[in-house]
Formats: sequence, structure tokens, C-alpha cells
Amino acid sequence: MPVPDFVLLDKTVAIVGLGLMGGSLALALRDKNAARQIIAVDTDPTTRAQAEERGIAANDTLEPVYQADLVIIATPVRTIVELLPKIGMVARQGAIVMDLGSVMHEIVQAMEQLPAHLEPISGHPMCGKETAGFHSADANLYQNAIFVLTPLARTKPETITLVSALATLLGARPTVLDAERHDRIVAAISHLPYTVASALMLAADELAREDDLLFTLAASGFRDTSRLAASDVPMMLDILLTNSANVASAMRAYSKRFERFAALVEVRDEPALRALLQDAAEKRREMIVPRAPV
Amino acid sequence: MPVPDFVLLDKTVAIVGLGLMGGSLALALRDKNAARQIIAVDTDPTTRAQAEERGIAANDTLEPVYQADLVIIATPVRTIVELLPKIGMVARQGAIVMDLGSVMHEIVQAMEQLPAHLEPISGHPMCGKETAGFHSADANLYQNAIFVLTPLARTKPETITLVSALATLLGARPTVLDAERHDRIVAAISHLPYTVASALMLAADELAREDDLLFTLAASGFRDTSRLAASDVPMMLDILLTNSANVASAMRAYSKRFERFAALVEVRDEPALRALLQDAAEKRREMIVPRAPV
Repeated sequence: MPVPDFVLLDKTVAIVGLGLMGGSLALALRDKNAARQIIAVDTDPTTRAQAEERGIAANDTLEPVYQADLVIIATPVRTIVELLPKIGMVARQGAIVMDLGSVMHEIVQAMEQLPAHLEPISGHPMCGKETAGFHSADANLYQNAIFVLTPLARTKPETITLVSALATLLGARPTVLDAERHDRIVAAISHLPYTVASALMLAADELAREDDLLFTLAASGFRDTSRLAASDVPMMLDILLTNSANVASAMRAYSKRFERFAALVEVRDEPALRALLQDAAEKRREMIVPRAPV
Repeated sequence: MPVPDFVLLDKTVAIVGLGLMGGSLALALRDKNAARQIIAVDTDPTTRAQAEERGIAANDTLEPVYQADLVIIATPVRTIVELLPKIGMVARQGAIVMDLGSVMHEIVQAMEQLPAHLEPISGHPMCGKETAGFHSADANLYQNAIFVLTPLARTKPETITLVSALATLLGARPTVLDAERHDRIVAAISHLPYTVASALMLAADELAREDDLLFTLAASGFRDTSRLAASDVPMMLDILLTNSANVASAMRAYSKRFERFAALVEVRDEPALRALLQDAAEKRREMIVPRAPV
């Protein structure tokens, strides 16, 4: 359903955390003149200075958040969980409280404890970069991304409509999903690739100690496969710790498959290897219809 | 040392195999008017038709290769090994015989059997794409790539100079390396990432059977980490089979590391996980000074 873009025009939006996600959101709303007012909050003075240089005035405390109709928490997952009760005390009657975290179940649990006069909903835009912080923020970051929304049982339909409009305004595609399903899916398509890339980087680095030419020869294949290893550590640590059961299970499934693959290479089982490689290549070619240049 | 670009001007260059690598080479030499004549050979009629559409006349047999001063074999590794004795019978006195294969030791062994009147040298340009075939060929493919050259004991210095000039002409950077060291390095930075990407694709696909939304949510992180899984299967199969000892050893080293990583996620060992993620992120950021847009 098409959602009107103007529904935020009379709203005050608070953004708590001006890293890549929160900073990009602030820039997008500012550039589009989409909200009545933006209240930005970050505890880090360097981040606030960077934000101010790009025209986003930022506060160092949660106090001004009481003015907001919509509060968006854009910090690492465990900080979201810690901030929710504090925001619950500050936010005004009827305010929508949303997050942009990558793992939902602990966040949704914490949202269930929020006072009854608030409207919680969890959100997770499926976009990012391997460079973190406000200095990487980009008003176009959300373009073409799937924006997962996870309402609570108590969340009103108007709230879902409003945050869907926000996602649409950012160029993203709102998709309602329950927390458990979301967390299982992102373990496979986002957190597992991160662990795969990090282990690859460390294994190659170990081999590079025996040969200093190793990384000189690395070309685009290695660069792409290891790219996610450079992701923001505090963010990824929170993700692995709060989604550990799903991630460990995906890692085990992957690891078993990889072990079998290694055994086939070791004994040079040509027919089995050909079948495996063909299967992987076909799946990769089928799967990917690039949504947009990223 | 700077190498003059004009050394090929009076040479006839034969290119056997017009896939991505050979096709790109043919287009680059033609566009630069670098050689006296280009003799292209491919056994596949579709490939020959594609080449002819882009102005590269192609033969279907090795016969015309006898005219060449420089013969470059650009097929999958095991085909190179099969073709070498045939080219040994066709090539004329003093001709240089080079390949562009990704695994060297079997190729170098086969080159050692070539008649004494030929000048063999093995070559491996560290570039590629995950799309194969002449229709993906690109005259700029070699730009900024490391071009590994592996002379045999008998290879004359003039031969090394000439193929270095060819590499430089293509915009690549010639680097002399022995076969054993080359094969160990590429196992770590090229073949291992391919196996990692393929296993990731298959593991995610297995999980996608339980949830059809899975790939809908996949963003640029999954796309990049799994990209290599779409590589050309015949080429990669030959690579894994001819470099199996090095690849299996790199896979085992990686797999051990990945298993330990999975165990840390399972028990949520925060300090150990933080150290691991920081180590991987630092190594990835240090390692990569992008050489060029690829």
C-alpha cells in the first residue's frame, strides 16, 4: 500500500546515537525537510562535533527527548536494551519508541516493559557499510534497503503506518516480520557472513606471517570475501552475543559443510567437487537479482 | 626497471583460448595495436562468433600457431597441461610459450618437457571476474593487477624481459615468483576465499529452504561475501584439483579457526570474542590499500 510521505511533517523526531545508521537517518530527514524538528543525541563529543559540522545540532543528554513524537534509538544492540527503560521515563505520552538494532528478541523483551502510554515498535533496516561512525553517514544509506518492522502485540496500526511511511520516505521497503523469524534469518544472511569473513582474514593473516608477499598478491576476490571483517566491532560483538544461539547454529551448519568440502579437495574427488561447485554457482547466480547499486 | 612498450610490435602473438582472460588479452593487444599480428584460437563456435563480432578473427585449430613468436595459453589449468605437448609440436624455433593458469606446478612440469628450441615461461595475472567467457572480456581487465611470472631454469633473460613488457603494456605489474611459492600463496588468498564463498552460499541456501524470505533480506554484505561462488566452475574445478594439497591445508587452517570462533559464540565468551573481532578488523583495515577501483 502506498503511504503518504508527509505524515512526519508535524512530528518531532529524536535520534539517539549518531553513528552510521543514526547519522544517516538524521541527514536524510534534514535533507528532505521531512520532520518538524530533529533532536539528535550522542554521548561522544567527537561525534557531536562531526554532526554539527554537517548541520546537525546534537545534545549530550536524553532530556530533550521528552519533546519527541517519535524516538529512534540507533546504538549497538545492548546499549538499546539499556537505554529503553531510561527513554521510558523521559518520553512523553503517546510517543513512538523505535530502534534500528540488528537482533530483535532482547529489544522486544525490553520494549514490553515500557510504560503503557508509549508505543514501541522494533525496526531493522537491512543496510550498512563496513565503515562506522558519523563521518561515514550518508543520507542515501537506506535507499532500496528492506526495512524490517516488528510490532509488539500492543502496537497500534497507526504506529505501524507511521514508521512504514518513515521507511518509505528514506527510500527503503518496510516489511513486517516477527522477532524470532527475523533473528534466525539475519543469523544466516548477515551474521554468518561476518564470521566467515573474519575467520578468513585471520587465517590468511596467519599464513601471511610465513610469506610477506601474500597480501601483495590479494586481488578483488579476497577483498570482497573479507570485506565484512572490517565491520564495527562494538556493533558486531553485541550482535554475536545477543543472537548467539542462532549464529552458533548457522556457524555449525556452515562448518559441517565446509569440512566435507575440504575432505573432497583433499582426496580430489572430481565428480563430487564438480557437483558441489556447480550447485553453489547456480544458487549464487539464481539468488542474486541486484536490487540496486550499493 | 622500466620496460619498453614497443617490444611486441614486430611479433606475432597467438592466444589459445578466448575466455575471459584470453579474450581480454586479445582485445587489449588489438586496441593498443601492440603486436604485428594476433592469432586467436578457440574450439568453441559460439566463442569464436562472439570474438568475431568484436573484431577478433578466431581459428578452430592449433595449426596457425606455428607463425607465432609468442604463444599464450589461456584455458583452464588441466587443459593447459594437455595442450602444452601439442603446442610443443606446432610452435616454431625460438617461440616463447606462456600460459595464464592459476596453479603453476603441473604447468611448469609440463613446460619442462617442451622441446629445447622453445622458450617456456609460466604466467598468472592476478585478476578476474565472477563472470566467465568472451562476452565478459574487457580490454582493461589487467589494469593494476599483479602479473606473476615464473621462468624455468632454462628460460632466457630476454624472454622474461619480453613477457614483462607485455604485462606492463596491459597495465599490470610483472612480479617474478617460483611456482611452489606462488601456488601456496594463491591457495590462501584466492582459492580459499572461493571455497569459503561457495560453502556460505550452500549453507545459506539450506537455511533458505526453511524460510523463503531469507534471500529477500540479504543485503550487500551477503552479496560480497558469496560473490566468488559464482566463478566459472570448470576453471575452479581444475584449480582445486591441481592445487589440492595447498588448498586443503589452507581450508584446514581456516576450519580450525572457524570452529574455535563458533565455540566462543556458543558460550558467549565476551572478552575472547572482542579480542578476535578486533584482531580481524584491524588486520582487514591494515591490509587493504585498494590498488585500484575493480
